[in-house]
Amino acid sequence: MMSIKEIVSDILTSQADKGGVKYVYYVACGGSYAAFYPAKAFLEKESRGLTVGLYNSGEFINNLPSALGENAVVIVASHKGNTPETIKAAELARQNGAPVIGLTWVMDSPLVTHCDYVESYTFGDNKDIAGEKTMKALLSAVELLQQTEGYVHYDDFLDGVSKINRIVYRACEHVEERAEAFAQEYKDDKVIYTVASGASYGAAYLQSICIFMEMQWIHSACIHSGEFFHGPFEITDANTPFLFQLSEGNTRPVDERALNFLKKYGRRIEIVDAKELGLSTINTTVIDYFNHSLFNNVYPVYNRALAKARQHPLTTRRYMWKVDY
Amino acid sequence: MMSIKEIVSDILTSQADKGGVKYVYYVACGGSYAAFYPAKAFLEKESRGLTVGLYNSGEFINNLPSALGENAVVIVASHKGNTPETIKAAELARQNGAPVIGLTWVMDSPLVTHCDYVESYTFGDNKDIAGEKTMKALLSAVELLQQTEGYVHYDDFLDGVSKINRIVYRACEHVEERAEAFAQEYKDDKVIYTVASGASYGAAYLQSICIFMEMQWIHSACIHSGEFFHGPFEITDANTPFLFQLSEGNTRPVDERALNFLKKYGRRIEIVDAKELGLSTINTTVIDYFNHSLFNNVYPVYNRALAKARQHPLTTRRYMWKVDY
Repeated sequence: MMSIKEIVSDILTSQADKGGVKYVYYVACGGSYAAFYPAKAFLEKESRGLTVGLYNSGEFINNLPSALGENAVVIVASHKGNTPETIKAAELARQNGAPVIGLTWVMDSPLVTHCDYVESYTFGDNKDIAGEKTMKALLSAVELLQQTEGYVHYDDFLDGVSKINRIVYRACEHVEERAEAFAQEYKDDKVIYTVASGASYGAAYLQSICIFMEMQWIHSACIHSGEFFHGPFEITDANTPFLFQLSEGNTRPVDERALNFLKKYGRRIEIVDAKELGLSTINTTVIDYFNHSLFNNVYPVYNRALAKARQHPLTTRRYMWKVDY
Repeated sequence: MMSIKEIVSDILTSQADKGGVKYVYYVACGGSYAAFYPAKAFLEKESRGLTVGLYNSGEFINNLPSALGENAVVIVASHKGNTPETIKAAELARQNGAPVIGLTWVMDSPLVTHCDYVESYTFGDNKDIAGEKTMKALLSAVELLQQTEGYVHYDDFLDGVSKINRIVYRACEHVEERAEAFAQEYKDDKVIYTVASGASYGAAYLQSICIFMEMQWIHSACIHSGEFFHGPFEITDANTPFLFQLSEGNTRPVDERALNFLKKYGRRIEIVDAKELGLSTINTTVIDYFNHSLFNNVYPVYNRALAKARQHPLTTRRYMWKVDY
């Protein structure tokens, strides 16, 4: 199988005489959509020559960007490769002349037949965090930047990739006890908010929609910590629970401002702090992009404890796998 | 005062010998952030030469995009021109060589001193909808496109602008009775979700964070209708209330899929349908971009009724205007 680096090189070579790559579209749903967030944030921040978009597949297929064509690359993701709107997105992208990279865990799926390049990723217990979907997507963004205009912190980034696995597993151990306490404290709550900012916002979004809402049937919203003071903070009181995602990197001051308020006027705040969890051994030049992998892999420790305390297994569904929609 | 058209022309002339405009950043907080959503959606969909970004001001000032410079235009908005992080955004943009357009209702404010161009907008009872903040922001996007690469539906768009005021005021009358019924039905609910897609997603986001959360202290989240099936739909039951924003235009099928599910498995759904409310007299080529103004101005009819039924005035705050943050 080709590496992401080789796939990007291949695409850039094949598109060179067509004007090169100018647009990068990440297209997926739910958890996969969230996993694309760091890649989108990376190019939005670091690139001058590449326009990046992050789309829900349903929205994408019904409202294709005008620029979708030979100068675009589309990266789709679907865990089992069977999400109809994501399959359709890949199909439409290719029809419009854009090369498609598919990230999937199942290499034999309807999605795969509509992709020019397919890349699998690690998943499940003891997986290598550096090989996860989020990291592969991020790597596609990094390689696209490096191989077009160059990325000055490329080596720092690869160094971060080499460190993330160890950081994550240590952090998971570190939170085990407090995850049990969290589960006991919040097991009867009807609403739990998540708060986050920056390139790791997607991890808090995923926790909100895929865990609290989907897997625990707890009402939730993911509040951007910079938006917190412009509406959401008015629901703060001594009883409202917040799972607070405190990132390392550039947007930490945005988080800290919201957290300082919550510490003063709220009482039920679970802080998951990337600094305390050891992310800071990664270079500050690239640290923003590694928060997601850390949070996204630490939350399951909390989630398993919560599901057990609530006697509501994470696999319980009302509708998914049961009814047509 | 210069028109938006003249401002854009002036900027393009002054930046011409510096390489022209390639990046457009909309930067604001809360309600103003939401008001920028259609402008961002417009350029994301329609443009090939302009990269667009929509940022919360706090995030922007702590994590400036690398491309912020002479080839960028920054459009900021703050109703009273006193939002510290938005003022800072304007200041940083200018320091980096980017011309700044400020949209504000108060022409004498700290924000104004950091803008190269200032544009006011209509506000309050009987305002002209075509002159609102959302429309002025959208117009900046349309003019930037038209005056750089050209916009094939420019005349259709201006025709839409000429129609939106009448459509909105008729729609407000149309929903008066059902808004009263809505208020009675939902006045004791602790959670109300909003659901939306497309260029008008910002209107549902605003309703969620600025009305339900901020002004009514009701728990809420804005669910993207394309993301609904990938997590959020599991909280659907006979009791969970949804304010469903059914847009006209390209992403209507995305909304309809979620709505069909809700009609089957939910019971408490208030549908606000742009088609029923008369938006369809606007040309289909541009209709997507007018949903926001319609919804955003129809919701206040619901909100006034809800505030009255709950005996919770829309001006009541716990923290805003009262404590430091």
